[in-house]
Order: sequence, then structure tokens, then C-alpha cells
Amino acid sequence: MKTRAAVAFEAKKPLEIVELDLEGPKAGEVLVEIMATGICHTDAYTLDGLDSEGLFPSVLGHEGAGIVREVGAGVTSVKPGDHVIPLYTPECRQCKSCLSGKTNLCTAIRATQGKGLMPDGTTRFSYKGQPIFHYMGCSTFSNFTVLPEIAVAKIREDAPFDKSCYIGCGVTTGVGAVVKTAKVEPGANVIVFGLGGIGLNVIQGAKMVGADKIVGVDINDGKEEWGRRFGMTHFVNPAKVEGDLVAHLVALTDGGADYTFDCTGNTQVMRTALEACHRGWGESIIIGVAEAGKEIGTRPFQLVTGRVWKGSAFGGARGRTDVPKIVDWYMNGKIEIDPMITHVLSLDEINKGFDLMHAGESIRSVVVY
Amino acid sequence: MKTRAAVAFEAKKPLEIVELDLEGPKAGEVLVEIMATGICHTDAYTLDGLDSEGLFPSVLGHEGAGIVREVGAGVTSVKPGDHVIPLYTPECRQCKSCLSGKTNLCTAIRATQGKGLMPDGTTRFSYKGQPIFHYMGCSTFSNFTVLPEIAVAKIREDAPFDKSCYIGCGVTTGVGAVVKTAKVEPGANVIVFGLGGIGLNVIQGAKMVGADKIVGVDINDGKEEWGRRFGMTHFVNPAKVEGDLVAHLVALTDGGADYTFDCTGNTQVMRTALEACHRGWGESIIIGVAEAGKEIGTRPFQLVTGRVWKGSAFGGARGRTDVPKIVDWYMNGKIEIDPMITHVLSLDEINKGFDLMHAGESIRSVVVY
Repeated sequence: MKTRAAVAFEAKKPLEIVELDLEGPKAGEVLVEIMATGICHTDAYTLDGLDSEGLFPSVLGHEGAGIVREVGAGVTSVKPGDHVIPLYTPECRQCKSCLSGKTNLCTAIRATQGKGLMPDGTTRFSYKGQPIFHYMGCSTFSNFTVLPEIAVAKIREDAPFDKSCYIGCGVTTGVGAVVKTAKVEPGANVIVFGLGGIGLNVIQGAKMVGADKIVGVDINDGKEEWGRRFGMTHFVNPAKVEGDLVAHLVALTDGGADYTFDCTGNTQVMRTALEACHRGWGESIIIGVAEAGKEIGTRPFQLVTGRVWKGSAFGGARGRTDVPKIVDWYMNGKIEIDPMITHVLSLDEINKGFDLMHAGESIRSVVVY
Repeated sequence: MKTRAAVAFEAKKPLEIVELDLEGPKAGEVLVEIMATGICHTDAYTLDGLDSEGLFPSVLGHEGAGIVREVGAGVTSVKPGDHVIPLYTPECRQCKSCLSGKTNLCTAIRATQGKGLMPDGTTRFSYKGQPIFHYMGCSTFSNFTVLPEIAVAKIREDAPFDKSCYIGCGVTTGVGAVVKTAKVEPGANVIVFGLGGIGLNVIQGAKMVGADKIVGVDINDGKEEWGRRFGMTHFVNPAKVEGDLVAHLVALTDGGADYTFDCTGNTQVMRTALEACHRGWGESIIIGVAEAGKEIGTRPFQLVTGRVWKGSAFGGARGRTDVPKIVDWYMNGKIEIDPMITHVLSLDEINKGFDLMHAGESIRSVVVY
């Protein structure tokens, strides 16, 4: 079949909207019509050539929502017509990781996914006979895409695609980090570093679970209004703090935060986030992706005196199990998405979405097919 | 009253055995006759002048066992004749830390303890009218010492002092790190870096809770026999590993360890310990005390992909609650202590104990009064 798609033919060039050839689903795979897709910083990170493992030509996009149109042999968990969110972190429920019950990082198809291929080692996309790589196992910048069955989460049919697509990455990453990774409890004090889309979702996750103080930290004063919109109780601009930022944050949270979240990707901020944790039990969660080669550091005394350093990928959420619940939370009004979708674009306008992101003018741009 | 004690008059000098004046217990304090005390690396660290906060002249020693001889006003939890272990990490059960239920790091008397003083801001020891500082709130290198009520753990009377004193620091630090901090579960794979006294206690803690593989890592082949004696199943000498140590350990533990423990204090080893953890869930516990100014570092990717970095002080054990249980474990044969006590000395021989430790010839030397 044919599909319209935005193709990244090479790094540091705009995407090109072309018609691709798409092979139908093989055994264990599903064909999904993507109805909407968000544009995420990770797509830009790859397109800008910053990911040393980035592959071209490829169909980027990993934050989508759509409808199953065809299933391959042996597929039992979804059927044509089902509404789904593609999962860049699949959930096979059979690998050592899934069975551990301790992580969401399913390893069933990791090797091929990292190579831009389907589990059988081939690609379904091609352009004029030339193979085009998949991306993060999703490739949602194509109107139609093929996914492994274990990489789609079936969701309720009344959820609007142009909002629920954001649950495919940003919402789950932020809210999940609070609920699944940190397991923030009611009454806890929380500090969130970086008030972009992920930070705002951490804030609303913390509000949902009943956190007490929710401190937002950003060097851009313009973010304060956004933070307060989603539940932030205190705003700190480090540039305006006299003296030591850690000491300021520790004082603000009565001895340090119970949980801190880095949503910046800056390794110096990651250190501040750890050290702003409460002695004895404070946990710092790294969400942001650091530049290649950058390292985090601290004095081991920080850990020996009870602080815990951990990270979160896809919010610690098991895709097929937890993503449908987060869709429910959105539909039930426990979390918000609508105000975060600042721009809606057509596929032809997708490069404008990248421009808006680079200019810091969007929280989230969504392409609607 | 008078007490014989080994006094550290200044750094880098041998202890001097002298008779000190000792004031009796004030309100909330107890007088304890120390019956035995271990000599720990932390005592040597201070005596060698490596602790920038070390105070002199002082009575060192923090790993003792003895008998309550007198109690001050208001003391209700112990009475004369009770057998006790002094606690350098007290347990007031009333401060924010104790009430959190998340940490053993009671803060009730932290400020004065760090200054070598009792909670009222004075010292009980003096020599020819000159005040002598307390050390870690314990000062077990004195035949009699005064302690806050919240800093003694009442233990069973049939436990031998010359063995149970080791529970005052080393045993609890190692076994507790496994049981309380990491909460190692049956079947887990564990790697222990550094097979000194703490490492051996981590090993026997891991054995006690039913760990599967218990890998010991030490650059001294002579430690292998000691490790196996307490439950180590595999020994790795990094100097004899061809290629990357982390890759070797990950292969040995089927993808990485569920829990790793640094008992070396070497910050490079701490990094290795983290990176040898299993992707998705492995936790690395720092027990060793690093040199002043040294820092730990790693790529944040290690945490984002599910590894957790934490630390443990006094094994995460609440002194008055958990130490008596560890004494029970020893008396019931769940853990061993006797073979670790390699040297028994008189107080007059205490400097020999430091020499043995520096020469690496002892696991633990104990002074019996």
C-alpha cells in the first residue's frame, strides 16, 4: 500500500513529505492508521544529528494515536477498528525484564528496534525501492505505519486522538515518573527542574497524587504561569536566588525535598536536584536526556546520608498495562492535556512544528492527519 | 569517678593509656561499663588525621558492648545491670527522621555529637582538669563512658561482650546494608566489592537472606578463602580479568547484579559497582567512606535505564530497634562473628590493634577490658 509520510532523508535537513510504499503487517504485527502525532524533542534530537545512533533515511515520530486497520497472523490482543497508542517501549510480558515486575524496559525487540527494523530484521517502508528505516519502533510521522503487536496499547474509543497522542510520550513520561518511578505519596514535597512539557506533566502528576509543596525551577520567568496552571505552588528562578541554590531549595522545602525531578537534561542541574533532596530519604529522578558524553557527579556522602539517585524512562510505565489507565485519567479529568497542545498542524506543516519547538514557542505541537 | 582510657591527645600519635576523670550521668544519660570494644577503620581514619572534623584530645572507639552501671534522672528504657551496645547512630523515636519511617539517621543529638559533646553541650571526660572530647557519641576506648539514653541498645544478657561489640558497627553496617537498605530478596544475585570486615558481613547477610550468586571482588587473592568462609559463591580478582571488569561481572551475573555493594571507599570502584548492576532494576549501595573531596560519577543513562544508586549508614539499622535483633541472629546462628575476631587485646595493647589493621593482618581486633 501507499502512505503519506514526512521522511528524514538526512540529518539537519527539513523533513520531506512524500508518498512511501508500506508493506502490510507480517505475523505478530499490526497496521495502524495514525490519526495524530506529537512532535517531541527526541525527534528533533535525532533530526539535528545529535544522536550518534540516529539512522537515515527514516520516518521519525514516536508520540501517536490511531486506529488498527489490519492485523497479521497470530495477533490476538487487538483487532481492526481498535484505537491504539504506539509504544516505543513495548511490553511483551514474557521477557526477563517484563517478568521481573521491577521495570518497564521490555527487551523483547530491543536489538532490532535500535537498528530501525521490525523484529524480523526488515523494514516495511520504502521509497522508490529504497528501504526507509523505522524510528523508535513507531514512525508516527507516517499516516500509516506497521508495529509489533506488543508495541501498541489499546485505549478507549472516546479519547480524542489529537490529545491522547501526547500520552504516547510526554504525558506518560512526566506523570509516570511521579506515579510509577518515584511513587510520590500525599503530603510529599517535590521540586521539578525545568518547566517544559515534561516538567509540567511532572507537576500535574504530583498534584494528582496529593503532593504538598510543588516547587518549579526554571531560568525562564515566563514558565511560572505555566507551572502554576498545572499545580505548581512555588516558583524559583535560579538566576534570581542570592547565594547557594541548593541551600535555598532545602530551606524552602523544610530540610530538602522528598522527591526531585530533573527535566532539563543538564548534568549540573541533575546534581543540584540530587543535593536538594532531604537527608535520609530524598529521591532524585533523572528524566532528562543528557548530551552525549556528559556525566553526573556528586560526593558519595550525599548517598551515604540517605539520598537516592535513580532515573525514569517512559515514566516507568508498562505500555500496554499503564498507558490505557493514563488515558482514563485524562478522560476522567484527573490530569489535563488540552492546554498543553499549543499548536495543531497538518502533515505538510510539520517542519513548522520543529521550528516552534526550537524557538521555545510551543509546549506541544500536534500533527493531525 | 575515675576510668582507664586510651586517649588520642593528638592526631598521628599513638593512643596513651591514662586515668581520666568521668562525671556521672546527667538527666537522660547513662553510665556504661564497657566490657569490650572493636577497633574500626573509622577510629584509625580519625587518629590518622584524615577526618577534617576530627577533634583532639578525645577518647575514640565506637564499637563496644557493656553494662549499664548508673542512670540519670528521667531514664526509663534501661536500668543498672542491663547489657547494652552503644549507638553512634541514636534512635530518639521523636525527631522528623525517626518519625519518617524512611531512615535510621536520627538527628536528635547530631549537632552536639559532631562537636564531641554530650547533648547539653559539655563533656564528661577530663584529664588533669582539661576537657577531653567524646567521639561519635560513644568513646568506647574508655572502661567507663557516659551515653545518652537514646544512644544505647539493650541486648540479651547471654550474648558475649567480646563478640557482640562487633555488632556496634561492622556487623550491623554490612548485614544491615543487605537486609535493611537493599532489602535483598531470596534468589537475587549480589556482587560485593572489597572483602574486608564490612564486605564479609555483606556476604553473610546475603547468604542469610537466600541470595543466589554472591560474587566477591577483591584485588587480594588472600581474601577468597575468607569470602567463601561466609557464603561467597564466586571470586573475582580484577587484576586477573582480561578486558572490561564491568562486562565480566555482567556476564557472570546473567545480565548484571540485582544488588551491588561497595565496601572499599574507592570512588572508581563505586562507579564499577553501579555499572555492574542489571539494567532495569539493579541497585548499588555505597557503604565505604570515600576520601575527602573525592566524587562519584557516571553517565546519567545508567540511571535512566533503571539502575539505582544509594548509600547505607550503619546498615540502615535503627539502633535501639534493630541492633537487638541482630544480636539475636548471632546468638541463633543465623550469622557468625567468632571467626572474624582475629585478635583479642588488652587496653594496654590497643595501639597494636591499629598496627594490625594498617598492616591488613586483622579482620577485627577487639579490646577486652
